[in-house]
Amino acid sequence: MSSERIIQVERDILGKNDRLAADNRARFRADEVLVFNLVSSPGAGKTSLLVRAVSELKDSFPIGVIEGDQQTSNDAERIRATGVAAIQVNTGKGCHLDAAMVGEAYDRLPWLNGGLLFIENVGNLVCPAAFDLGEACKIVVFSTTEGEDKPLKYPDMFAASALMLINKIDLAPVLDFDLARTVEYARRVNPGIEVMTVSARTGEGFSAFYAWIRKRWAKLKQAERTAQG
Amino acid sequence: MSSERIIQVERDILGKNDRLAADNRARFRADEVLVFNLVSSPGAGKTSLLVRAVSELKDSFPIGVIEGDQQTSNDAERIRATGVAAIQVNTGKGCHLDAAMVGEAYDRLPWLNGGLLFIENVGNLVCPAAFDLGEACKIVVFSTTEGEDKPLKYPDMFAASALMLINKIDLAPVLDFDLARTVEYARRVNPGIEVMTVSARTGEGFSAFYAWIRKRWAKLKQAERTAQG
Repeated sequence: MSSERIIQVERDILGKNDRLAADNRARFRADEVLVFNLVSSPGAGKTSLLVRAVSELKDSFPIGVIEGDQQTSNDAERIRATGVAAIQVNTGKGCHLDAAMVGEAYDRLPWLNGGLLFIENVGNLVCPAAFDLGEACKIVVFSTTEGEDKPLKYPDMFAASALMLINKIDLAPVLDFDLARTVEYARRVNPGIEVMTVSARTGEGFSAFYAWIRKRWAKLKQAERTAQG
Repeated sequence: MSSERIIQVERDILGKNDRLAADNRARFRADEVLVFNLVSSPGAGKTSLLVRAVSELKDSFPIGVIEGDQQTSNDAERIRATGVAAIQVNTGKGCHLDAAMVGEAYDRLPWLNGGLLFIENVGNLVCPAAFDLGEACKIVVFSTTEGEDKPLKYPDMFAASALMLINKIDLAPVLDFDLARTVEYARRVNPGIEVMTVSARTGEGFSAFYAWIRKRWAKLKQAERTAQG
């Protein structure tokens, strides 16, 4: 198969995904649901971070979670243990969630009107960058254990994300982690990226993260009110 | 595009890769070069591990390194600083090395007759599992910071690897890392996988890793002698 043919096939796949992502986005808007797509390397701590966040936000908002993994339903079970609804999607050989998977999983969640939907993507710093799921924005979770150079080595993901949550900040002292350098590298590929440091283990930094979510939620409400005249 | 058509395209891509991987394997055998394909999540420490290994093995073997990353030539520069030849391959949007990239990079290395070639794949626990590069075997580098459940959640990579190097073992005491559980999960998806613990930072465990390499190298030599009658 020629490279031209492969590129055409990739375009077709992405084009189809973009159309389904637009459908998802319209549904989320109609339901007034604010949707975040969490992306990271495997093991950066997305699930631990979500377990804490949904536990602490569930009294303020209707919340649902869609969990993506190649195999197992471990993550959805961890979320459900908090009392929050979660749907597990297994991608099998697949390396990312796509808009069709998210649309089907959303059908199986309770109605989240006026609430939050967190989508935890497959742990992969490459492929999920190219696939719009209909989210309001991507949040890249980055662990202090991964090394400062990752934004330069995997630039697409950091360029595609609105917020970088630097997790496991409690481990920074035992590593030789250079926070300023990491932020500089992330802003080199995405000058507008917002940055927060958190520890899913200790809870450090989460109140700032919640304030960020509430601000985006208020903006969404305001935009809807304006649209309705 | 139909799913059947997409599956056919994937088969064509993998089939072409397998043919080029067989060509690479024949060249490596003719040159008597033992080739390892190192795979892991981003930030598991493959490059730090290789910097130490090639520094400590370069007086015993001719050594070359092929470095795969979406962007930057940082890793090849780190290897070259040890005096060992390294070729950087940038995959751009791509999420894995393929056999064609490795064949071209191998042409640009000095002749490694009777030596070792380390290929450091793009940090990605999904896609590189499906792409044979012509290596003798895959080595999956797994960091204690990633969480014990990763072999179950990304089974293809652990099933495809002959050896799991559990890196950052010096951090195990400050994490709640459960070594026995990690090994049990890895053997659930690959009963034959060998396991070693190392720390690229302290050097712990590397002599056992070198003994493992020497044993495989001796086997390769013996197989060649047998083949030559």
